[in-house]
Amino acid sequence: MNEVTTRTVRVELGARSYDILIGEGLIAGAGTAIAARLPGLRAAIVTDETVAALYLEPLRASLRAAGIEATPIVLPPGETTKSFSHLQTAVEAVIAARLERGDAVIALGGGVIGDLAGFVAGIVRRGMRFIQVPTTLLAQVDSSVGGKTGINSPQGKNLVGVFHQPSLVLADTQVLDSLPPREFAAGYAEVVKYGLIDRPDFFEWLERHRAGIFAGQAARAEAIAESCRAKAEVVADDEREEGRRALLNLGHTFGHALEKAVRYDPARLVHGEGVAIGMAMAHRFSVRLGLCSGQDAGRVARHLEAAGLPTRLGEVPGPGFTVAELMGAIRQDKKVSRERLTFILTRGIGEAFIAKDVEPAGLEAFLADEIAGR
Amino acid sequence: MNEVTTRTVRVELGARSYDILIGEGLIAGAGTAIAARLPGLRAAIVTDETVAALYLEPLRASLRAAGIEATPIVLPPGETTKSFSHLQTAVEAVIAARLERGDAVIALGGGVIGDLAGFVAGIVRRGMRFIQVPTTLLAQVDSSVGGKTGINSPQGKNLVGVFHQPSLVLADTQVLDSLPPREFAAGYAEVVKYGLIDRPDFFEWLERHRAGIFAGQAARAEAIAESCRAKAEVVADDEREEGRRALLNLGHTFGHALEKAVRYDPARLVHGEGVAIGMAMAHRFSVRLGLCSGQDAGRVARHLEAAGLPTRLGEVPGPGFTVAELMGAIRQDKKVSRERLTFILTRGIGEAFIAKDVEPAGLEAFLADEIAGR
Repeated sequence: MNEVTTRTVRVELGARSYDILIGEGLIAGAGTAIAARLPGLRAAIVTDETVAALYLEPLRASLRAAGIEATPIVLPPGETTKSFSHLQTAVEAVIAARLERGDAVIALGGGVIGDLAGFVAGIVRRGMRFIQVPTTLLAQVDSSVGGKTGINSPQGKNLVGVFHQPSLVLADTQVLDSLPPREFAAGYAEVVKYGLIDRPDFFEWLERHRAGIFAGQAARAEAIAESCRAKAEVVADDEREEGRRALLNLGHTFGHALEKAVRYDPARLVHGEGVAIGMAMAHRFSVRLGLCSGQDAGRVARHLEAAGLPTRLGEVPGPGFTVAELMGAIRQDKKVSRERLTFILTRGIGEAFIAKDVEPAGLEAFLADEIAGR
Repeated sequence: MNEVTTRTVRVELGARSYDILIGEGLIAGAGTAIAARLPGLRAAIVTDETVAALYLEPLRASLRAAGIEATPIVLPPGETTKSFSHLQTAVEAVIAARLERGDAVIALGGGVIGDLAGFVAGIVRRGMRFIQVPTTLLAQVDSSVGGKTGINSPQGKNLVGVFHQPSLVLADTQVLDSLPPREFAAGYAEVVKYGLIDRPDFFEWLERHRAGIFAGQAARAEAIAESCRAKAEVVADDEREEGRRALLNLGHTFGHALEKAVRYDPARLVHGEGVAIGMAMAHRFSVRLGLCSGQDAGRVARHLEAAGLPTRLGEVPGPGFTVAELMGAIRQDKKVSRERLTFILTRGIGEAFIAKDVEPAGLEAFLADEIAGR
């Protein structure tokens, strides 16, 4: 582990402030990093079978070397793990390990594991310490920062959960070397999002450094750090999503509707791909409403395409979408307040804003055109 | 409803502050009280079959008259309802009712319903509004104030939950008229506790007004209000039980051990009875440690006995207790930190304090004597 190249991003939340460490070899260095900050704790490691095969033993060895005893809780991989029954399994395993409030639940994995393990940490003994060790790009730049935890309900994703901030996030960039390219690209959609919300300079920087980021050069760690900074800033401002934090949903209302329409079939669409199409659509919808220039919308789509991401409905394999199913999903989105439609729209690259009272008729016409490929 | 006699106790928790209203006829007046404070909300009412038969329709009628639509969720009565499976049932019913973050889960019932419904409100959409309508004395003076919510795990009570403060508590003292005397007395143990912790004047007042409190006179509402004030003060000081709030556990470490030893069989012991014996024991243990006068311990026991509460292990029907089972339960108590035993001890009536590092050998000898009836 080369300590020198570890970047630290601080999430400022008063008594709940915490550090995100970003760098190569942080799993191997986890024991040292945790023991230095949280001396004397014991832990449970929540992970899935796929990640466990690669990183569970290295993490345990590192913890053991630092005197930290950790009970592993290994769950099946995949979105269906975010259920009541796996929540209960993990909760009871943590209790059986006789951990106390000051002890930690460590999430080793991607967004599914992070969301579930964070929820476990948030409810066992009404709140234990929580440490994130995200192993996907998506989790490193998005889900491991900000304290949103939860599981799915038969009626929708992430409808059950708590806000529970981690005490520490260890983003080991080395693990990204073994990430399938499609999954890396999907995570990259969230990186691009931060530029599109309110960091036009970052978006330009991404346009110049995309190849280096995908090749795993220093630009990659910098892109992750800047993404974490961007998210940390929004979260510090609005921890419980009562206002500005909704900007992080840029591309997500469309994206969630698409995920729902394909019934969360990852063979057709993964979350980051839905977000990529959703962001491209949010820009085109903003153009149609006379808010954003066509040049900006085109530039966004080109950058996403260059990264190997879809930007059009027609790129999703399988049967086409209908206006009715997309509108239904949009109305069911948990961010919908009463009967008004709230969207994140934009005046251009880096100028996203929260639009309330979006007119359903105009949206339907836009969706019809998108489906027709117009 | 006689609005004039409604008492209001404010729980000061910054942005999470709320009022507890105490008075006759507050169920009939719930619609007005809620609509005035939280205009425009919709609701789900979580209750149990026993309470539903008495108060669900009056509550719904009152809400309806105020324009508040409320979906009822009726669960079986009893402690076993505080389980993962009933949690899931209630969570999914609230989601199915399409309630949003600003809408409310209303708990209509005793401590079990309040704890479960509060947990539901704390996790659906990562936190909805929560309104308590406690229908037992215990719930009115204890569990409905302070924001502790949760369910049981096979390994112990209340091991899973969140801190989630209500937006409003409506304690209708009229419902206490139909409470079985044994349950009223059990709730009264928690009233006495507030005097014993740090309100010696209140304890004296209770000695003088006990008969009136049990007869349902004005003293009853005043005793409830003073109990809520006492709890509100401690909670405002230490919302998440990191320090002083532990004082509220006076009598509870012994009490929980007894409840565990009788396997939560309410025919043998209900919570308040465990607390009564536990408080009497905490005073006797403090006498033995040279902290408290025998006079004070005797006065406490006499007051509890006069209220029809047990104060000795021998009063619990069924097989006797062993030192080993009680010590095992005490060590497993969630308030035990590492291997040290933390107890609430006392220097006299109204002078309770948090004692860490209680010596296990001395405790064992004390338990042996209590079991022997010495």
